[in-house]
Amino acid sequence: MEKMEKIDSYPFYVEPFHVDMSGRIFMGILGNHLLNAAGNHSQRRGWGIGALNESQHTWVLSRLSIEMEEMPRQYEHAEVRTWVESVIKLFTNRNFAILRPDGTPYGYARSIWAMIDVNTRKPCDLLSLYDGDIVRYVVSPEENVCPIEGHGRFRFRNAELVRTIETYYSDIDINGHVNSIKYIEHILDLFPREKFTGQGIRRFEIAYKTEAYMGDRLNFYLQPVDENEFDVEVRKNESETVCQAKICFK
Amino acid sequence: MEKMEKIDSYPFYVEPFHVDMSGRIFMGILGNHLLNAAGNHSQRRGWGIGALNESQHTWVLSRLSIEMEEMPRQYEHAEVRTWVESVIKLFTNRNFAILRPDGTPYGYARSIWAMIDVNTRKPCDLLSLYDGDIVRYVVSPEENVCPIEGHGRFRFRNAELVRTIETYYSDIDINGHVNSIKYIEHILDLFPREKFTGQGIRRFEIAYKTEAYMGDRLNFYLQPVDENEFDVEVRKNESETVCQAKICFK
Repeated sequence: MEKMEKIDSYPFYVEPFHVDMSGRIFMGILGNHLLNAAGNHSQRRGWGIGALNESQHTWVLSRLSIEMEEMPRQYEHAEVRTWVESVIKLFTNRNFAILRPDGTPYGYARSIWAMIDVNTRKPCDLLSLYDGDIVRYVVSPEENVCPIEGHGRFRFRNAELVRTIETYYSDIDINGHVNSIKYIEHILDLFPREKFTGQGIRRFEIAYKTEAYMGDRLNFYLQPVDENEFDVEVRKNESETVCQAKICFK
Repeated sequence: MEKMEKIDSYPFYVEPFHVDMSGRIFMGILGNHLLNAAGNHSQRRGWGIGALNESQHTWVLSRLSIEMEEMPRQYEHAEVRTWVESVIKLFTNRNFAILRPDGTPYGYARSIWAMIDVNTRKPCDLLSLYDGDIVRYVVSPEENVCPIEGHGRFRFRNAELVRTIETYYSDIDINGHVNSIKYIEHILDLFPREKFTGQGIRRFEIAYKTEAYMGDRLNFYLQPVDENEFDVEVRKNESETVCQAKICFK
């Protein structure tokens, strides 16, 4: 199979309401474009959500790390390219390049996905699903490079509770869960405007641990690593970790 | 000029993260599509934000009323048609039809816009701008019908303070204002999930009065009209009205 048949292109345009006060696309909106690109790529190859639901399976996003040299700005046209880098039984690594019309990169992203059985909520062996069809689409790092660091580890030692929010209607997706993109919004809302009017974000990482639901109260714990790097842990019901994130400003 | 040259089509697709727990598009996302359609329509005719900024003018949305027989659902393709219904010196009435691929309507919307001088923030005479070019694009109600009621009047008599929120980074647009779409989200977040898992919203109206900024504390006052109709007033600094909305559930 040709390399290009394994890689998909998802074009997007930076709409006025999708940019922040500095004119750069919101990280959450960019994340949404990445997830759409991933969804389309799977769909076209026969293992999208629709096909999976019939077989009682669904994709679950576990990690997403986005690293940007520059964020696309209002009215700019850009493109997401996405491909599967590897499949390891219960997980697949999917990469992304975010490109300008001339092919130069705004940045890159990495993600990890599991496939679960919708009834048991347990992960499935990806290599056995559809006779391992997904392996045919793997594009190795040698074939297509994703030149950003892998997902890091989180260690929360002295994180401080900085905000508590209720979850409302617009936080919730069709599955009744707080939607993956809304966490990104709420996490970035912890920071003062000066962090965004300057150079902006260099790298954003998030690890999704447990689902939260409408009405759950979310506690946000902030742990500064240094002047420009911050770890955030989101917990529900006082103790259960919902997700963890790392924000590196430039 | 042909009628169709005066009307623009803006196609959209209902993305997974753009639907609520019932699988219907969020009203705020639909509103964003309408504003994009309006922006494109103006842009193509030479009086879009870009051209206007050079002449130190900009469009300001004053009213938006959306009435839907049915909301588009996840994975559906739809189209916004938009046209200018009338121009009255300081205001223009712009209408929208939200259509299925077969041309049948999901619903309609009406809006009112003013053009202001970016320095004085005062409204401009639309009939004199660009020698009244905008008038050439008017499509009268006889030519193209928008079969929904006009914008109503608000009367707040016994509204009750039901929520106070701080405004954060993701609320703010490139102009430093709380963005028009975020108000719709925050207003609908006042209602319990049962209001949305049932029949959903029939009509949503909003009147924008004053801008709010990052750090402003917004107070939400709720006034039930009857079991399915609610008025909401948003105020900042205790007293100043930022916007008013009416929500009619089915």
